[in-house]
Amino acid sequence: MERFFDKELEQLYRKLKDMAELVKNSIQNSIDSLKSKDQKLAQKVIDEDRFIDELEISIDEACLELIARRQPVAYDLRFITMVMKITTDLERIADLSVDIAQRVLELLDKPLLKPLIDIPKLSELAQRMVKSAIDSFINQDTHLAKEVCLSDDEVDKLRDLIQDELIYDYMVKDSSTVPRAIPLLLIARHLERICDHATNIAEDIIYMIQAKIVKHHREKLENNNDKK
Amino acid sequence: MERFFDKELEQLYRKLKDMAELVKNSIQNSIDSLKSKDQKLAQKVIDEDRFIDELEISIDEACLELIARRQPVAYDLRFITMVMKITTDLERIADLSVDIAQRVLELLDKPLLKPLIDIPKLSELAQRMVKSAIDSFINQDTHLAKEVCLSDDEVDKLRDLIQDELIYDYMVKDSSTVPRAIPLLLIARHLERICDHATNIAEDIIYMIQAKIVKHHREKLENNNDKK
Repeated sequence: MERFFDKELEQLYRKLKDMAELVKNSIQNSIDSLKSKDQKLAQKVIDEDRFIDELEISIDEACLELIARRQPVAYDLRFITMVMKITTDLERIADLSVDIAQRVLELLDKPLLKPLIDIPKLSELAQRMVKSAIDSFINQDTHLAKEVCLSDDEVDKLRDLIQDELIYDYMVKDSSTVPRAIPLLLIARHLERICDHATNIAEDIIYMIQAKIVKHHREKLENNNDKK
Repeated sequence: MERFFDKELEQLYRKLKDMAELVKNSIQNSIDSLKSKDQKLAQKVIDEDRFIDELEISIDEACLELIARRQPVAYDLRFITMVMKITTDLERIADLSVDIAQRVLELLDKPLLKPLIDIPKLSELAQRMVKSAIDSFINQDTHLAKEVCLSDDEVDKLRDLIQDELIYDYMVKDSSTVPRAIPLLLIARHLERICDHATNIAEDIIYMIQAKIVKHHREKLENNNDKK
């Protein structure tokens, strides 16, 4: 009986990996559609979001069903409830890719501000954080999860840089750039929120593995990492 | 034994109500601090966020402990796991109040754009949605929860109105308004996200009560409500 339960957990795990893969693609596609002003690709991100939504529902249902039927305790219970939290974050990341794709559609009829400031850089950081968060889950790697949490400061700095450049080097100097600059400013914000969700996932993973709350206690984490 | 479990659920319920009350206050205070450019009040919103964070952790722990010890099934299990989802949304709403308060701090040394466009109106709508979402939980009222879900379109329209006014009536016409207009534009976005979280909570409540997935299937809901 116990072995069968392991198989069910394994299935859950695989579904979550599939969902993570779809979500990573949606970020990549949304930023690619921005770089190449590709309307079709932006529309694809928006249209295919429903597959991610459906996967979230199906994983949540499987989790509830498992808890009810198997009545897991300790690590297994923590694993299953954390899967439910992680799917929530993954689904919101996909929604943020949709938000980016919608900004791309708004920009289609406008010349792009070159060279998109540091947005591609922030996007790479966001994708790396999501990938690391998921890898740390797959490999049960708390060290990698902690790195994700600590990347958050870099994200904030990059976001501020992009925002200041858009405001003071473009919009204030030439108000005709405002309608083109605002969607870029919002895209930077969407990417920042994607990083926040990756951080949430990493915190959940650390919690799952260490059964220790690092959420809202980042100072502790930095101390543990000999950064302070 | 069963009666004792009911008492434990009741305690969980009360803690969630306390958390919701703190979160409602944090939205109210953040918008009041904007209206009156009150630095102290904005700082209070930022400083007191940690109480809400702590409450989230404590409720989550109580949920996990209850699942492990009581092994609930059916409605009780759904209730407990949904409490965990609702606390996540409430905590993020509080984070968004902190975001608003931070924008207020950025605006302190700048003259406000009068009359704050429709931001107070959007803020009232956001607060009403959070209140209704929580009331629908307290009173197990799916009808009210559905109303919350359906308010989302109104929110989007109001957000677009505010954004267009800020861009075309202020920033494009007079680029010196950009540094004052951007924080307001972001505040409108923060309020919109608060409404999104209220909608998530309402969807979770409907799910809990009806054991039916309305998440990502708003059309169905509108059909049920004879709106289509």
